Amino acid sequence: MTLPADMIERFKAIVGEKYALTDPDVQAAYLHEMRDRWIGHTQLVLRPESVDEVAAILKLANETRTAIVPQGGNTGLVGGQIPHHGEIVLSLNRMTNIREIDPVSNTITVEAGVTLQRTREAAAEADRLYPQLLPSEGSCTIGGNLSTNAGGVAAIAHGIARSHVLGLEVVLADGRVLNNLNKLKKDNTGYDLKNLFIGAEGTLGIITAAVLRLVPQPRAVEVAFLGVPSAQAAVDLLGIAQGRAGSDVTSFELLTRFGMECVLQHVAGTRDPLDASHPWYVLMEISSQMSAGLRDVVEDIFETGVERGLVEDGAIAETLEQSKAFWRIREEVGEVQKKLGGSIKHDVSVPVAAIPAFIEEANAAVIAAVPGARPFPFGHVGDGNIHYNVSQPEGADKAAFMAQEDTVQDAVFGIVLKHGGSISAEHGIGIAKRDRLPKVKDPVAIELMRTLKAALDPNGILNPGKVL
Amino acid sequence: MTLPADMIERFKAIVGEKYALTDPDVQAAYLHEMRDRWIGHTQLVLRPESVDEVAAILKLANETRTAIVPQGGNTGLVGGQIPHHGEIVLSLNRMTNIREIDPVSNTITVEAGVTLQRTREAAAEADRLYPQLLPSEGSCTIGGNLSTNAGGVAAIAHGIARSHVLGLEVVLADGRVLNNLNKLKKDNTGYDLKNLFIGAEGTLGIITAAVLRLVPQPRAVEVAFLGVPSAQAAVDLLGIAQGRAGSDVTSFELLTRFGMECVLQHVAGTRDPLDASHPWYVLMEISSQMSAGLRDVVEDIFETGVERGLVEDGAIAETLEQSKAFWRIREEVGEVQKKLGGSIKHDVSVPVAAIPAFIEEANAAVIAAVPGARPFPFGHVGDGNIHYNVSQPEGADKAAFMAQEDTVQDAVFGIVLKHGGSISAEHGIGIAKRDRLPKVKDPVAIELMRTLKAALDPNGILNPGKVL
Repeated sequence: MTLPADMIERFKAIVGEKYALTDPDVQAAYLHEMRDRWIGHTQLVLRPESVDEVAAILKLANETRTAIVPQGGNTGLVGGQIPHHGEIVLSLNRMTNIREIDPVSNTITVEAGVTLQRTREAAAEADRLYPQLLPSEGSCTIGGNLSTNAGGVAAIAHGIARSHVLGLEVVLADGRVLNNLNKLKKDNTGYDLKNLFIGAEGTLGIITAAVLRLVPQPRAVEVAFLGVPSAQAAVDLLGIAQGRAGSDVTSFELLTRFGMECVLQHVAGTRDPLDASHPWYVLMEISSQMSAGLRDVVEDIFETGVERGLVEDGAIAETLEQSKAFWRIREEVGEVQKKLGGSIKHDVSVPVAAIPAFIEEANAAVIAAVPGARPFPFGHVGDGNIHYNVSQPEGADKAAFMAQEDTVQDAVFGIVLKHGGSISAEHGIGIAKRDRLPKVKDPVAIELMRTLKAALDPNGILNPGKVL
Repeated sequence: MTLPADMIERFKAIVGEKYALTDPDVQAAYLHEMRDRWIGHTQLVLRPESVDEVAAILKLANETRTAIVPQGGNTGLVGGQIPHHGEIVLSLNRMTNIREIDPVSNTITVEAGVTLQRTREAAAEADRLYPQLLPSEGSCTIGGNLSTNAGGVAAIAHGIARSHVLGLEVVLADGRVLNNLNKLKKDNTGYDLKNLFIGAEGTLGIITAAVLRLVPQPRAVEVAFLGVPSAQAAVDLLGIAQGRAGSDVTSFELLTRFGMECVLQHVAGTRDPLDASHPWYVLMEISSQMSAGLRDVVEDIFETGVERGLVEDGAIAETLEQSKAFWRIREEVGEVQKKLGGSIKHDVSVPVAAIPAFIEEANAAVIAAVPGARPFPFGHVGDGNIHYNVSQPEGADKAAFMAQEDTVQDAVFGIVLKHGGSISAEHGIGIAKRDRLPKVKDPVAIELMRTLKAALDPNGILNPGKVL
């Protein structure tokens, strides 16, 4: 689409010349997806500083049928934040006020452009924890976290982004402002409006602020790195861990030996926490408000695991340094695949009980489809969320491998669906999975989504072409 | 409304003669709200046994513009389940299958007519806990619990009904079946459809089955009954308790001395757990997966409370009998108000930090409005949810007192709103608060609710006149 000059001036007037970006060099940071998988284009990036300015932009956009792409920290992985067709980009990155912290009610009220890291720091200053944890915390924003219903490594205990929200402020497609910024855990006065916008990827409204739930800071944290014989053993061990420690199990991450070897080989300063090699690994973190006794619990889980043949060997971190070293292996697993050449990625979930069968069947299917392909699964066992990635055969041509993406994804998603799983556990749909969605989702669900989209954004100005 | 005879026959044919109730004596159990506050009337109570039958009923109802009132266990407190205008009652009480329990994925899949008690029992048989707990558990059903987003005494740790749901099966207004029965904690494939139906009181669709999240059974439970000097002390003590025990604090209930005295006077077999009298009481339950050390934690909270002047005296249950006796006082508080004559009830929530000010201001306002009126607040401190009830002045005329309901509610709700609270924390809107809702809720929220209702139930056949 191309906007006439007078229209551009009307939009510029809302935020002021300084915050209406037209210079391509200045715009670049808003147009490139971080892996350069998508590069958008636009005549205008708008950077409003208040909910009133956002409302004025949407009012004008709705009246003039001008498409808008909302953007937070531009860290999304499915292209949802990119203007693929020249839409105006509405960046929330100047809405950075922390409006209030209430440590008695355990809430923090932040604007959409506040980064996750700043939110966590502000909570920590009040001796509270905001329990969302994502690798991109320094860049990603609360608005983006909520619009994509982000997951992360602490969701097993504290839930996904949706779980943290008590209230929202949202600008609707026509510029009306929904003021639902309450601090209430219980409010049964009508329909649940907030969850409509959380995870909708900016297609139903633009989140401008949120009241988030805080929890107490844990007083004790134990981290164990365990070698296990199989994915089934990891699932069984999770059952033991949750039976012993319930929601104190704050992370339970699965890695393969192949993933471990890649990290050890390619990432300087890493070393194997265990003496021998093991087919699979679990990184388990347990946190508690109780300052005593947690070590015993972790040791008990470890020993029970050994007794039942679920754990081959393990190490419990003795120092903060050691727990950081354990965590570093897990964090690097996400990055190190680049060293292996092309990688076809799947952010999927299945019921926890189905994880072992899913991985086994997917491995077989992938290798049948692309002989020599190297499955690289890792992820969040407690959420049933596996990042089932597939690296190219050793020495193969990267482009030729990536050209088989659809074939590999068809195979993997087919197995996901067979097990009642989801083709997008935490990254969302954006543009990356939009065309696949109608093929895998309940048709009535798709119809209902279209009904909601038509009701809330009848002119189709909000992030058009994303999700649906 | 009055249905022609041939129409009645068409509906009857769907469920069969035996399950289409027309005899007023047989219908009575479906028409009387349990306190007889509302008594409905209908030509037909339908009792389908399957989602297909529910779908067929709604398809016909939608085509013929016939209004339907869905009903679960008929325990709702706001008249939402009653056919006030002769609508057909669609009871889910024959949909009682527990479709699956998966202790590895920690899920149970139940049909709408399964009672809460049976759900909890089935979970317990698999060594799991379904953490919703309501006084009406023997009668209330999962369908009703979800449609009203029920709260209860365990919500502080485990959340309200909405928090327990992973997947839903819903029949839409036109008979289409939304199959969203997944076991996934993470599923970001489009809009969050399930939360649209949870808490919508059957006005947007009829929930026929749900996948619910289970948690491990706790291994240790401690119950303490504490005398505290003020509501502020109770709030401060909650902060200490959550700092020490986090989400292991599974109940934190507030009572007044007046409430305690009523129970002791009117309920046989109750006795004061403490020697002296105290202005306020807290019933605190802490549960843990860890079998050791919990008693120390409770004692630590108790002692810290005493040191800081937040606790005057207290008792920690030594036996299961004792903890039952403590809980009985809390449970009877809800019932015993009947003995005091008329009671004007408010199921409200405010931010936790605002509880003390809310109670103090509401007490003053109520006594100013009705001299001699006896405030009777109790409830769930951790959720900010106070059942702020007001008993009639001693010896006053009940009818005359109840005639002042609007005046008293205006006063109380005004203070609730001033503190950013909700006029219905856990009971819902139904018909009881329908006319008040537009006066207290953000007008954009009301407009959005109307937009959703029009989009999902364009013919207005689903529980018309409720909520909106």
